[in-house]
Amino acid sequence: MAIRLDYRDGDFEKRFAAFLTTKREVSEDVNATVRAIIDDVRENGDRALAAYTLRFDGLDFDTVPMRVTADEIEAAFRATPAAVVSALELASKRIEKHHARQLPKDDIYEDDIGVGLGSRWTAIDAVGLYVPGGTASYPSSVLMNAVPARVAGVPRIVMVVPARDGAINPAVLAAAKIAGIDEIYRIGGAQAVAALAYGTETIAPVAKITGPGNAFVAAAKRQVFGTVGIDMIAGPSEVLVIADGENDPDWLAADLLAQAEHDRGAQAILITDSAELADAVEAAVTRQLKTLERSETAEASWRDFGAIILVPDLENSVPLANRIAAEHLEIATSDPDAFLPKIRNAGAIFVGRHTPEVIGDYVGGSNHVLPTARSARFSSGLSVLDYMKRTSILRLGPEQLRTLGPAAVTLAEAEGLGAHARSVSIRLNPGG
Amino acid sequence: MAIRLDYRDGDFEKRFAAFLTTKREVSEDVNATVRAIIDDVRENGDRALAAYTLRFDGLDFDTVPMRVTADEIEAAFRATPAAVVSALELASKRIEKHHARQLPKDDIYEDDIGVGLGSRWTAIDAVGLYVPGGTASYPSSVLMNAVPARVAGVPRIVMVVPARDGAINPAVLAAAKIAGIDEIYRIGGAQAVAALAYGTETIAPVAKITGPGNAFVAAAKRQVFGTVGIDMIAGPSEVLVIADGENDPDWLAADLLAQAEHDRGAQAILITDSAELADAVEAAVTRQLKTLERSETAEASWRDFGAIILVPDLENSVPLANRIAAEHLEIATSDPDAFLPKIRNAGAIFVGRHTPEVIGDYVGGSNHVLPTARSARFSSGLSVLDYMKRTSILRLGPEQLRTLGPAAVTLAEAEGLGAHARSVSIRLNPGG
Repeated sequence: MAIRLDYRDGDFEKRFAAFLTTKREVSEDVNATVRAIIDDVRENGDRALAAYTLRFDGLDFDTVPMRVTADEIEAAFRATPAAVVSALELASKRIEKHHARQLPKDDIYEDDIGVGLGSRWTAIDAVGLYVPGGTASYPSSVLMNAVPARVAGVPRIVMVVPARDGAINPAVLAAAKIAGIDEIYRIGGAQAVAALAYGTETIAPVAKITGPGNAFVAAAKRQVFGTVGIDMIAGPSEVLVIADGENDPDWLAADLLAQAEHDRGAQAILITDSAELADAVEAAVTRQLKTLERSETAEASWRDFGAIILVPDLENSVPLANRIAAEHLEIATSDPDAFLPKIRNAGAIFVGRHTPEVIGDYVGGSNHVLPTARSARFSSGLSVLDYMKRTSILRLGPEQLRTLGPAAVTLAEAEGLGAHARSVSIRLNPGG
Repeated sequence: MAIRLDYRDGDFEKRFAAFLTTKREVSEDVNATVRAIIDDVRENGDRALAAYTLRFDGLDFDTVPMRVTADEIEAAFRATPAAVVSALELASKRIEKHHARQLPKDDIYEDDIGVGLGSRWTAIDAVGLYVPGGTASYPSSVLMNAVPARVAGVPRIVMVVPARDGAINPAVLAAAKIAGIDEIYRIGGAQAVAALAYGTETIAPVAKITGPGNAFVAAAKRQVFGTVGIDMIAGPSEVLVIADGENDPDWLAADLLAQAEHDRGAQAILITDSAELADAVEAAVTRQLKTLERSETAEASWRDFGAIILVPDLENSVPLANRIAAEHLEIATSDPDAFLPKIRNAGAIFVGRHTPEVIGDYVGGSNHVLPTARSARFSSGLSVLDYMKRTSILRLGPEQLRTLGPAAVTLAEAEGLGAHARSVSIRLNPGG
């Protein structure tokens, strides 16, 4: 069902290169629609927001308030099964603990000639968190986006979530409560992104918007970028499993299907040096698909984008893994530590047979918002740093200016920037 | 000439808010042209690159090689005035020293229940540095982009610079040599960005592209984003000077004009509590403009976007400064330290009367690539981190999986993700 590649085949490099560049997303061009919505919300504020919400979500702000009330949040929390609440609390605590270690330290110092230099970190003033509606409304994503923002010290965290016909997944509100979010609006789509970026009568604008969304949300985020910051635009999820022959094929099949069930464009790849395991995993995938609720999605993903790559030696998987630069990489071998330092490009690495990627989705403590579509070659998963910014500080006294000033004047003149040169020289020669 | 705002005026808030949202850039829509160039280079490689270079730069790769030779770099280095070379060397050393302090530390640890967690940083494999041609071909920018990449440990740094009729500013090649770059191509525009992103027969692709450029370069960077990483798209430069009445108006006028001379869209703002100083600075600007090579540009910038804001008390400047979120902020007061902790939003802060912003452009050691157009509210200047990425590491043994697994299963089921649940439960109940 999935594509099979064999490292020993003469055309392997050609087929692997083609496999790497396969597009897994149909990019809908919704830019014009989104542009009109954003302009409307920017100009007409709440009125436009209400009109779009009525039209797209069937929700009337004349009968239901835009902002979710404290009582509703409380009621949703109580309506969420106790086991789910305590799993969310466990996840929240672990995410918080791990992310607290990411808090950057200011670095303020004086160098050998007495110049004061500094890097100072501050939290972003206000952040908007987009939460999708419907089946993609995941409480775990609320935690993964909100907890790092709270750890960073963001004073105001706003959540928007579309409530088709008024309904919001109670577990999402429970997660918001656990994450300490109480400013929640029942809005979604491009109109919600516009409201967060430009503000309306009801919603004060934020400085950055994070969180996943559909094509309209993604296009809206791209369009408001610059006015506000945005996180990366995530593509379909992917996993790469590097496995020796000693694995239980059912475990690996379950891991591959856990990615595949996300989205028809998701991608699950197995690299192994065992042809027997390859066949056994393929068979297990087929078997497990039969009892999977989301079998249609998973089957399509596995058929269209899944791959099993056979290598003569697991060592051969290293350069392949670095080119794939997977969002998630599982190393299911007897000596996973031997691999770790060789992997340069991966969003997250799951080490050993007892670390299924799913643990990282929920309760591992690390973030599940990770770079997709090979972007782990140049970017990182969501962290506390995404909710902060760094200001440089420079301080010279008269003596330091005398020491460094002439070189600055030389370079300014070489670059033809006379006012630059004067701004220094006027201080060096106060008389002239 | 510049706009004047007085905090005590009844309409101050309205005028200040309007001032904040003034657009200082004409955004040319060059997307279609750029799309065609990128597609052509992607399909036809070197051949397309040569055709565009002949057309736009008047340079024929049949007579001049695309790649700058080692001898040429050497010759340019020798042709650069000794004072410029040593100023560049001083700058490079100071930038390197400061940026080395930004190198992130890996954090690999075991938590209280024995789960292995980690954040591991690696350099990006290959980075392309865009350097503009003509008058905007600044050797200082070469250092500011290349040195952090080298400090990060990027193994391959490629430079592209358009050479109109073959000419490259020798100081730019000297800066490249000082920064240790020897892979330099005589290409520019959208075609150079496309070549870096997708590769050609001559140029291997990179994973990230940084550096300033014109509207075509900016549009091309936006379009290849995703295939490669890009740095922020910088807008026109800006400075905010907060000054008490004890300043030499000529010093401040020189600082304001140093920004204004960059670009007709640059912005220079003075906030002061002294009406006398305000008048004196305005007069000094007028006087200094007369003897400025780039007076036409500086005068247009000061006239169209410059501002002097009078406040009753310098304390009032703090919230204004945080809303302006200037790329560069000078604090020219007798007690600048009192201001520092109150400023949350600024790309870089220059502390005290003897720290003109220009020092930071060249030899301060901090980076001069900073967030413009109020984006310091949510983003930071260029740093070593921009040339690295972080991989999360998670490691559970059977015991940790038994501890955390059930919560993951609960959340997966709550989210309707059956294969996620199975990927954990199958390991918890190997029999069933």
